[in-house]
Amino acid sequence: MTARTDPPPAPRRRGRPARTDAAGPGARERILAAARAEFAEHGYDKASIRGMAKVAGVDPALVHHYFGPKEQIFAAAVEEAVAPALRAPDAVAEGPAEGAGERLARFVLGVWEDPVTREPLLAILRSALANDTAAGVFRDLISSRVMIRIAAELGGPDARLRSELAAAHLVGVSMLRHVIKIEPLASADIEQVIAMTAPVVQRHLMGG
Amino acid sequence: MTARTDPPPAPRRRGRPARTDAAGPGARERILAAARAEFAEHGYDKASIRGMAKVAGVDPALVHHYFGPKEQIFAAAVEEAVAPALRAPDAVAEGPAEGAGERLARFVLGVWEDPVTREPLLAILRSALANDTAAGVFRDLISSRVMIRIAAELGGPDARLRSELAAAHLVGVSMLRHVIKIEPLASADIEQVIAMTAPVVQRHLMGG
Repeated sequence: MTARTDPPPAPRRRGRPARTDAAGPGARERILAAARAEFAEHGYDKASIRGMAKVAGVDPALVHHYFGPKEQIFAAAVEEAVAPALRAPDAVAEGPAEGAGERLARFVLGVWEDPVTREPLLAILRSALANDTAAGVFRDLISSRVMIRIAAELGGPDARLRSELAAAHLVGVSMLRHVIKIEPLASADIEQVIAMTAPVVQRHLMGG
Repeated sequence: MTARTDPPPAPRRRGRPARTDAAGPGARERILAAARAEFAEHGYDKASIRGMAKVAGVDPALVHHYFGPKEQIFAAAVEEAVAPALRAPDAVAEGPAEGAGERLARFVLGVWEDPVTREPLLAILRSALANDTAAGVFRDLISSRVMIRIAAELGGPDARLRSELAAAHLVGVSMLRHVIKIEPLASADIEQVIAMTAPVVQRHLMGG
């Protein structure tokens, strides 16, 4: 048992939430990490706030204080896990159009290549693939923060659909390389994978 | 309780296993369907042979008799779930090379479009994404029965890698369309999705 019996904090006030309280500094971050692990291990349906609180070493009331009900905890965990990927639209925007496919491929495959950014993303994606509520939270965030922005960069007919097909390719490559670990893709040099993937991503982004 | 208390069958003999015994005809198929549901609901690690037996209405000893230990039950469930997809290499082979991408895209996306073939595949894929042992079983089957055959059709340098990148694209599109259900991809006309995906699959298959 690592659960602590600190009293729950005072009701949340408007404005920026207090970061230091009875649970100590960093409690919010510990709770999010614990939530991610709990969702990954037990799935969205069976994940419990009590379990997260125990791992984070805080009172369950504090979890509710910071995040509200389970769906909102999941949304916060998704937001944190996909944060590194949210800059993908910048990769499309920052440079000439003819290099957009390579920049996007390099950026997204790079997020999956680094265990520090891969593992939280993978934990969240596993939950999202197994539960419709979790899939909805993931979908809304990716749609509103990534796909809309890439589509706005592209313009033209079917820009949203083309953005999603480009993303689909990079998601599929990452799944087969890092999760299913099929060979030779799993061990291929990342530069070769980027070189073979970029023209296809470019074709989706630019149409034709 | 739907578990039955039939005595376990006689030890398995060499050759074709008997299909009718104390558990009645169709027991093997019922066990496989129950195993798929058990793996999907509880994940590979927590799936229990007792749980499968209960849902199938047979004695747990019969599950072991037919399939052996859990990894082999999973392999049989994977084999059954991916059976419709195992004809993918034929889609590449049967026709002129310039249409291979469209035939493969149409075939694989078609398997995902039909709930009858999609649901078992999705259940197995969810298990494989969440557990390394399950991922290995899935990987070995897809490698040996699909990727090697497509690569043999293609020939040329990096044929295996190109086959896997083509497959990755179709897996990614299917995940975003049918599991994450991101719009507009989720509701797009399947013919439009095939038309936009086929050139990319073709490019991977044929290189360049």
